[in-house]
Amino acid sequence: MSEKATMIVFSGDLDKAMASFIIATGAASMGKEVTMFFTFWGLNILRKDQYVPAKKSFVESMFGKMMPRGPEKLGLSKMNFGGMGAKMMKGEMRKKNIISLPELMETAKELEIKMVACTMSMDVMGISKEELIDGLEYAGVATFLGAADESNINLFI
Amino acid sequence: MSEKATMIVFSGDLDKAMASFIIATGAASMGKEVTMFFTFWGLNILRKDQYVPAKKSFVESMFGKMMPRGPEKLGLSKMNFGGMGAKMMKGEMRKKNIISLPELMETAKELEIKMVACTMSMDVMGISKEELIDGLEYAGVATFLGAADESNINLFI
Amino acid sequence: MSEKATMIVFSGDLDKAMASFIIATGAASMGKEVTMFFTFWGLNILRKDQYVPAKKSFVESMFGKMMPRGPEKLGLSKMNFGGMGAKMMKGEMRKKNIISLPELMETAKELEIKMVACTMSMDVMGISKEELIDGLEYAGVATFLGAADESNINLFI
Repeated sequence: MSEKATMIVFSGDLDKAMASFIIATGAASMGKEVTMFFTFWGLNILRKDQYVPAKKSFVESMFGKMMPRGPEKLGLSKMNFGGMGAKMMKGEMRKKNIISLPELMETAKELEIKMVACTMSMDVMGISKEELIDGLEYAGVATFLGAADESNINLFI
Repeated sequence: MSEKATMIVFSGDLDKAMASFIIATGAASMGKEVTMFFTFWGLNILRKDQYVPAKKSFVESMFGKMMPRGPEKLGLSKMNFGGMGAKMMKGEMRKKNIISLPELMETAKELEIKMVACTMSMDVMGISKEELIDGLEYAGVATFLGAADESNINLFI
Repeated sequence: MSEKATMIVFSGDLDKAMASFIIATGAASMGKEVTMFFTFWGLNILRKDQYVPAKKSFVESMFGKMMPRGPEKLGLSKMNFGGMGAKMMKGEMRKKNIISLPELMETAKELEIKMVACTMSMDVMGISKEELIDGLEYAGVATFLGAADESNINLFI
């Protein structure tokens, strides 16, 4: 088994975020060095769940208000029905003792998965470091490409 | 040409399912050993088109009813218009003698493409083996990672 | 750093198109040989922005009219609100001096990124060469697989 795996997490949907972290933590627990590069809507997975005061333009604060804050607020990519679908899927997962997204994210930290927030996307969407969870790195596409280049598993999610 | 290609088929949209099988059968006919790992909505591609009686919770049977049963029922990821778009695209493909999804799936079997259903997703969505077509393997993320690790083409679709 | 990167650009959303070209131009400027293979909705990124007369069936011309013509007309994959979201995001990007999609596409040409239009998708959607921008290559899945096989970065976007 080679040593590295890299993922671009572009999507901010609950189901795709789940898939990303299941793959990432699986790979890390098999001994791979894993980098997750969060970009565009994927940044929403990394947002703190409370409102964080930050100086924003009108458009930025509008985006900020409308986009979900953190793993508990994400919707499904299909059959979300205004959040009902996500709620039902989370309910099913609890009932069946399947690990939740916040727990997967904790596991990712324990397994020392490198979580990188794309600075250009933060700039476009007007998201500041204070609004994101702790323990992240901040970088651009060159950092992603460097990691991807050394990985034999590369996914865009 | 190296020997393996692996795909995660996360999406259950007709257009993405088509893309998956076109790539998979293309790779297999060039001599690659191909693994398709079906997860979340991708499982819908593998459902039998008839109703299969199975013991389900309320939420499971609701999901079961609302999700499409098999390749003939899938919608497009864009411009589906309640199925009209998918119907029209299939019509165009027939007119132009382009291979259909059910035919691609037959070809995949003939080419001995390994089709794996993700057991964790089956559990979350309450889908049983009886509801899926024959000839599948059943496994979890470790199996996917094992295959991906030996592949030089890895895609998340 | 190895020599090649290959991307399937399946999506025709502005945000995903941006991501594709940022990664592609980044990789090319690091010295990689990059192939972008445009398929399905991704072909819309390559459309000329004016109407091009072409002999089409009823369904083809309907698809042609409803699908966006070129990078300026694309919508966001999320929060598009009939084009408002895309407009606002483009506004933010201009304000922050972030390179636009048409500029990224120019850069891609200068960096000699190979842009390939999938002929099978063109056939399905009834899109002719005249409707697409200059400087493209035209090929099918075998060409993609050949490029992907020699690449260590492969993404499906």
